[in-house]
Amino acid sequence: MTAAILSIGTELTRGEIVNTNAAWLSAELTAAGFTVDVIDAIPDDVDQIVAALRTLAQTRRLVVVTGGLGPTTDDLTAAAAAKAAGVSLVRDESALLAIRRRVESRGKTMNAGHEKQADLPAGADVLSNSVGSAPGFSIPLGDTPLFFLPGVPREMKRMFTDQVLPRIRPSAPNNTFQVRLRTYGLGESLVGQALAGIEGTHAGVTLGYRVHFPEVDVKVHARGANREVARDLAIRASTEVKARLGDVVYGEGDEAFTEMVGRAVRSRGYRLALAESCTGGLIAHMLTRYPASDYLVGGAVVYANSAKTRLLGVSEDTLRWHGAVSAEVAAEMAEGVRRVCETDVGVSVTGIAGPTGGTAEKPVGLVYWAVAHPGGTVVRSKVFQGEREEVQIAAAYAVLDLLRRIALGLPERAQ
Amino acid sequence: MTAAILSIGTELTRGEIVNTNAAWLSAELTAAGFTVDVIDAIPDDVDQIVAALRTLAQTRRLVVVTGGLGPTTDDLTAAAAAKAAGVSLVRDESALLAIRRRVESRGKTMNAGHEKQADLPAGADVLSNSVGSAPGFSIPLGDTPLFFLPGVPREMKRMFTDQVLPRIRPSAPNNTFQVRLRTYGLGESLVGQALAGIEGTHAGVTLGYRVHFPEVDVKVHARGANREVARDLAIRASTEVKARLGDVVYGEGDEAFTEMVGRAVRSRGYRLALAESCTGGLIAHMLTRYPASDYLVGGAVVYANSAKTRLLGVSEDTLRWHGAVSAEVAAEMAEGVRRVCETDVGVSVTGIAGPTGGTAEKPVGLVYWAVAHPGGTVVRSKVFQGEREEVQIAAAYAVLDLLRRIALGLPERAQ
Repeated sequence: MTAAILSIGTELTRGEIVNTNAAWLSAELTAAGFTVDVIDAIPDDVDQIVAALRTLAQTRRLVVVTGGLGPTTDDLTAAAAAKAAGVSLVRDESALLAIRRRVESRGKTMNAGHEKQADLPAGADVLSNSVGSAPGFSIPLGDTPLFFLPGVPREMKRMFTDQVLPRIRPSAPNNTFQVRLRTYGLGESLVGQALAGIEGTHAGVTLGYRVHFPEVDVKVHARGANREVARDLAIRASTEVKARLGDVVYGEGDEAFTEMVGRAVRSRGYRLALAESCTGGLIAHMLTRYPASDYLVGGAVVYANSAKTRLLGVSEDTLRWHGAVSAEVAAEMAEGVRRVCETDVGVSVTGIAGPTGGTAEKPVGLVYWAVAHPGGTVVRSKVFQGEREEVQIAAAYAVLDLLRRIALGLPERAQ
Repeated sequence: MTAAILSIGTELTRGEIVNTNAAWLSAELTAAGFTVDVIDAIPDDVDQIVAALRTLAQTRRLVVVTGGLGPTTDDLTAAAAAKAAGVSLVRDESALLAIRRRVESRGKTMNAGHEKQADLPAGADVLSNSVGSAPGFSIPLGDTPLFFLPGVPREMKRMFTDQVLPRIRPSAPNNTFQVRLRTYGLGESLVGQALAGIEGTHAGVTLGYRVHFPEVDVKVHARGANREVARDLAIRASTEVKARLGDVVYGEGDEAFTEMVGRAVRSRGYRLALAESCTGGLIAHMLTRYPASDYLVGGAVVYANSAKTRLLGVSEDTLRWHGAVSAEVAAEMAEGVRRVCETDVGVSVTGIAGPTGGTAEKPVGLVYWAVAHPGGTVVRSKVFQGEREEVQIAAAYAVLDLLRRIALGLPERAQ
C-alpha cells in the first residue's frame, strides 16, 4: 500500500526552506509499515493544489498533506481541498471555539486571520491542534483518505503522532523490515562489489547504499508475508553482509562513527588527548559533539610550529630536520600531548590540507598521524585526494579508525 | 517559464535523508530567473522514474534531475532516462576514460561499478564531473531539456554551476535580480519585524528569509522589465535593508561568517590563539575549514580541569573558588593561551553544553567567553537555549562575533 506526501508552500519551491517535514513524515510512515513512493512539493496555488490532490488520491492509498493552513492570504490549502472534493468551505464552530480559546489564553484578540483558520471543507473530520492555532482535518477523496496538517514542524509532528497515526495504523501492511549497517574504510563501489549477488540469493531483499563521505551505509531492506518474515529475511541477509565486509562495518542503525570510537576508547578505560595540526580542531569537535566525551581530557590545535614546540614540547631540531609534516613530528606530537595532559593515549595528526603548501616530495593531501599508547607509538601516513575539507575529514576518520582499532585490539586494515 | 526538479532516491522517500539538493537547486533556479513550480521525490524504481520524466517533460519547460547515477545496482536513473527517451543505453567512451583517469589517479583499479557509470542514453550530451566519478548528462524529451546530475551535493552543485547554468541561462526570462544579505545576531522574527513595509514601498521587490542556525539570510528578490531594472530595484531595496539592520549584516552573497571573522582578524594584523572548553574544538574547526587561516597560531581544547591548568596555566585556586564555568576562568584561559602561544589575541570559551551538568546557579546553556587583546581582556556570558549542539554553535558564533567586533573596532551589540 503506497502513500504520498504533498508539501505545500512557495517557500519550498523557491528554495527558501528545506523540506524537513517531508523527511520526518516519510521516516514515520516507513517505520509504521507504509511505502511512501512520492513526495511532491508545490507552491501556494489553488489550481495546482487541486490537481495534485486529485492525482495523488487516484494513484495512492493514503495522502498526507502539510502547509498552507495558516492565517494569511497565501494560505490556500483548505479552499483547494474543498474544491478538489467538490464541497463548500464552511466555518467549523468547534474549531473556531478552540482557536478563540487559544488566542485569548495568550492575551490576544481574535482577528479575521484567526477566524479563517476555522473554515474547513464541509464534512471534514477536524484534527485539533494542541500546540498551535490552525486545526488540521481529514477528508476522503474517492477511497483514499487525505490528512491535512499545518506546516509548522512542531505542530505537524504532534498532530501526526497523536491523531493521524492511530487512524492509519490499522491499515498498514506491516510486511517490511530494514537493517542499516554503517561502514567506514571502503568506497561505495568496492562495498557494492563485495556484496554482489546477495540480492539474488536472498529473495525479497534489496540493498541500498547511502554515502556520506567518507562513510557508506548499507541498507538491507526485506519484504515478506508479514513483519516477522521480513525481519528474519533482513537479519539473515545482513549477517551475510557483515560477514563479507568484516570490521569495515563499525555499527548499526543510528550509531555514529565517532560515538563508536568514543565507546571503544571508554571500554578500554583510556583517557585521551589530541594534538591536531592540519585537521585544526575537527577531531576534537567530532568527539565532543556527543555527550559523554569525558574520556577526552583535552588537546592542542598546533597550527604553527611555535605552538607545536611551546604547547607540546616538539623539538625544534625535529621540526628543522624533518619538517612539520613528517613521521617524526607526528610521533613527538602524540607523545607530547600524552605527556602534557597525563593521559593513557595521545593522538596526533599533521599534514598539508591544501589548497596550497604542497611540494614535489610532500604534496597537498600528505598526512601523518600517530597514536601514542601504553604499548608504544604507531605512526601512519597517506596522501589523501580531494579538496581541503575532504582531506581534513578523510584524515580525521583515518586517525579515529586507527584509535578505534587499537582500543578494540582489531588488526589494521591494509590501505 | 516553469521548471521542475525531480529527486531520485529511496533514501528520500524513506526519510533517511533530507532533500537539501532540491532546496539548493530551487534557490539557484529562482535566482537565475526561473519559476520552479514542482519538486518531486521518488524512489529508485525504473517505472516510476520513466513515468515522472515523461509527465514533467510534457508539462514543464525545464527539468533538473538528481540522484541514481552511482556505481551500485540501485542506481537506475540512466537506464530509466534511456527508456523514457526510447533510446538504448550505450557505454560512452570519453566518459569511461574520464572515470578511469579519476579512479586511477587515486591509486585504485576500475571495477564493473565504475564502468557502469559510463553507460548513458544514446545521444546524451555528457556533463563531466570534476569532483567525482559519475558523469551527468542531458537529453531532450519533446521540447524540454532534461539535466541529470549526481545526488552527492558537492558534485551536483559544481556540475549545475559550471555546466547546467551556462546552458540554460540564455532561456531564462532574465528579468529578475537577487541580493543575498548574510546576518547574525537577530532571530528570524526580529529581522522580519525590522524590515516590515519594505515590500510595500519597493514595488517589484519580495523579501525571503532563510534560517541556518544561528544565521538568517535575507534575500532581496526583484522582478522588473529587464535584468537592469530588476538589479536597480534589488540594490535600492537592499540598501534600505542594510540601513535598517546595521552591522547585523556581516556580509553578502557567498561570504561565510567565519571567513569574515578571519578577514577582520587578518586585516588588523592579529595573531590568534584559542582556548576551548565546552565548544570542544568547534571554533578552531570553523576557522581552519577555510584556507588562509594562518593568523591562527594554535590553541587548546581544555575539556578537563587538569588540561586547563597544565596547558594554559589556569590557577587551581581559581578553578576551586569560582568553578570551571566562570568569568574568572574564562579570563585566565584567554590570557593563558595568549601567553603560551605568544599571540596578540587569546580567545576562550567555557560553559555547560549539556545535556547534563547543570545546577540551579549554573544551568545547562550557561557559557562564559573572553577575548584577551592588547587593549585588555573582555569577558561576556549568556545562557543559550537548545540542545548540546545548538549551545555549542551559538556559543562559537557569540565568541567569534565579539572577536570580529574587537578586530574591526565595532561596538558590541546589546544582547
